[in-house]
Amino acid sequence: MTANNRIVSGMRPTGPLHLGHYFGVLDNWVELHKDHQCFFFVADWHALTTEYADPTRIKGFVPGLVQDWVAAGLDPARCVMFQQSEVKEHAELSLLLSMITPVSWLERNPTYKDVRDQLDEAKDLSTFGFLGYPVLMASDILIYRPKWVPVGQDQLPHLELTREIARRANHLWGDFFPEPEAKLTRAPKLPGLDGRKMSKSYGNAISLGEDLDGVRAKIKPMLTCTKRVRLKDPGEPDECNLYPYHLLFTPQEKCLEIAKACREASIGCGECKKIMGDNLTAFLEPFQERRKAFDANPDLAWDILRDGNDRARAAARQVIGELREKLNFNF
Amino acid sequence: MTANNRIVSGMRPTGPLHLGHYFGVLDNWVELHKDHQCFFFVADWHALTTEYADPTRIKGFVPGLVQDWVAAGLDPARCVMFQQSEVKEHAELSLLLSMITPVSWLERNPTYKDVRDQLDEAKDLSTFGFLGYPVLMASDILIYRPKWVPVGQDQLPHLELTREIARRANHLWGDFFPEPEAKLTRAPKLPGLDGRKMSKSYGNAISLGEDLDGVRAKIKPMLTCTKRVRLKDPGEPDECNLYPYHLLFTPQEKCLEIAKACREASIGCGECKKIMGDNLTAFLEPFQERRKAFDANPDLAWDILRDGNDRARAAARQVIGELREKLNFNF
Repeated sequence: MTANNRIVSGMRPTGPLHLGHYFGVLDNWVELHKDHQCFFFVADWHALTTEYADPTRIKGFVPGLVQDWVAAGLDPARCVMFQQSEVKEHAELSLLLSMITPVSWLERNPTYKDVRDQLDEAKDLSTFGFLGYPVLMASDILIYRPKWVPVGQDQLPHLELTREIARRANHLWGDFFPEPEAKLTRAPKLPGLDGRKMSKSYGNAISLGEDLDGVRAKIKPMLTCTKRVRLKDPGEPDECNLYPYHLLFTPQEKCLEIAKACREASIGCGECKKIMGDNLTAFLEPFQERRKAFDANPDLAWDILRDGNDRARAAARQVIGELREKLNFNF
Repeated sequence: MTANNRIVSGMRPTGPLHLGHYFGVLDNWVELHKDHQCFFFVADWHALTTEYADPTRIKGFVPGLVQDWVAAGLDPARCVMFQQSEVKEHAELSLLLSMITPVSWLERNPTYKDVRDQLDEAKDLSTFGFLGYPVLMASDILIYRPKWVPVGQDQLPHLELTREIARRANHLWGDFFPEPEAKLTRAPKLPGLDGRKMSKSYGNAISLGEDLDGVRAKIKPMLTCTKRVRLKDPGEPDECNLYPYHLLFTPQEKCLEIAKACREASIGCGECKKIMGDNLTAFLEPFQERRKAFDANPDLAWDILRDGNDRARAAARQVIGELREKLNFNF
C-alpha cells in the first residue's frame, strides 16, 4: 500500500518567503515534484506552537505562502498543496503516537530547550504543545507513509525522532509505517544583504515577491569586500558578500571571469553589482510572471488549497483507516 | 450558543461494570439524563494511555459498556452515547489546547506521578500521551461547552485543571468556553465482598450483568462482623461488610430493624445475607430485563453508538467551527 515514491514536507505560514528560503528548501521542492508524488503543507497548527497568543494573524500569511510556492515553480497540478489544520487526521495520529512516545525523547530534543530559552523572554513556550511538536511533526509525515522527507543537515535529528517514533509504533503494533528516509538537500550559502544570515527580522532579505526595481535598489548599497577601499585595491571574492550571489545567479564562466577581474582590480564593485543585479532580476522575472495569475484571481490560492485539502484528506484517511483496523479501533 | 443544561461524562472501556461503578457514577448518570442534555462517551482514546501496548483488546469491552449503561437505566433516546475516537474533533481541540497548557500544570497533576509510579513496573507510563491526558480530558469536556460535569470529590482536581485550561483559553482568545461546574455526586460506600474496595482485580466484585444465582452464591461466603463468632454473640452493623449492602438494597425501616436484631443477636448472619441477597437480586432484575434486547440483537450496542456518534459529531463540529472562526482558522 505504500507509495514508495512519496515525499512530504511543510512550511510555517509566518511571512513572505525570501531567497534564503528558496535556496535549500523551495528549490529542492521544485526539483522533487517533477518526478515524485509530493505533499506540501502549510503548517498552520505548527505556527500555533509559537503564535498561540494571537492565532488570528496566521491566516493572513497562508495565501501568500501558496503564491510564493507557485511563483517559485511548483505546479499545483503536479503536487498536493494543502493546509495541515484542514486534515484532522494529523491531529488524530498525533494523539495516537503521543501514547507511545516517551517524554524523555522530547525533553532531549536539542531544539526544544534552545528555542524555548531563546524566545522565553517574549513568549512563554513551556507549553505541552511546544514540548510535543516533534510528535505532531512525526504525524504530519507518517500519516502519508512517505518514502522520503527532504531535510537539511541541521534537521536530521528531527527526522531521526520521527523514525524512532515509527520504529516504536511498528514494534508495539506490528509493521505499519515505513521509516521515512532523509532526502538530504543542498543548501548553498546565501548570506543576507549585510553578510549576516538572511532573515526578514534583520531587514537584510530579498523576498521572492519583491518588486524588481526594489531589488536593484537593495543591491546598490550592499557591503562587498572590505579589502577594496579604493577602486585599484585588489579584492577577494571569497571574502565578499556579493560573490555568493554571483555563484547562484551568474553563469559559472562569468563568475570565474569576475573573480579574476576582482582580484586584479579590473572591475569595480558598482559594475559587479550591476551584473549580479541583472542576473538576479532575470532569475526572479518568471516568479513575477507566475504570480500574475494570483493578482488576477484573489481566490486562486484558496482554490488551490481547497483542492489539495481534499486530496490530502483522502490519502490521510486511507492510512488512518488502515491503522485503526490494525489497532482494532475501526468500530 | 451554550446549551446551559448540558452534561458531559465518560468511562473507559476496560471491562464489565460492577456495583462499585454503579453507585456514585452510573446511578447519577441515570438521574441526570432524565432532565439534562447528556453526552456520555466510551473513552477509548483514554484507554490507550495505559493499554497502548495492546490496543486490540479495547474494542471487546465497548459494546459491553453500552449494555451496562442501558441495563442500569440509561435510555439511548434521552441521551447521546458515543465513542470518543469516532469524533475526531476531540483530538483537534486537544491539539489546540495543548498549545496553551503549561507543562508545569500537567506535572503537578497529583494523579500523574501516583498512577505512573503505581503502574510503572508493569507498564512504562512516562509517555507524552499519559502526561497530557488532562488536556485530552479538558477537550472531551469543553468540546461540548457543557454547564456541568458530574464528578466525585476525588476528581475535583481534574475538573479544576479543565477549568483552568478553559480560563486560559478565554483569557488568550476571548470568552468562548463556559467554565464547567462540578455536579458533585453522592458516592455511597460499598465495599467489595471481602471488605476491601470493590475491584474486578481483587475478585470481590458483583458485576451488573452477573447471573442472579451467581450473585446469591457470592453473598453466602461473605465475611460479616468479626464480633459474631457464635450466633448468640451480639454484632455491630457499623463494623460489618454486609450492612452497607443493606443500606443500599433494603428499605430503610427494615435496615433499622436488622441493625437492632444484629446488636441483640436475634438474627443470624445467614438469614441476614438471605434478606440482603433477595433485595439485591430484586434490584438487579430490571437490569437483566433491559439487557435482553442486546441478547436478541447483537448489533444493538453498535447501532446505539453509531447514532450517538453522529449526534456528538454534529455538536462537536458546531463548537470547533465557532472556535476556528474566533481564531481566524476557518479557512
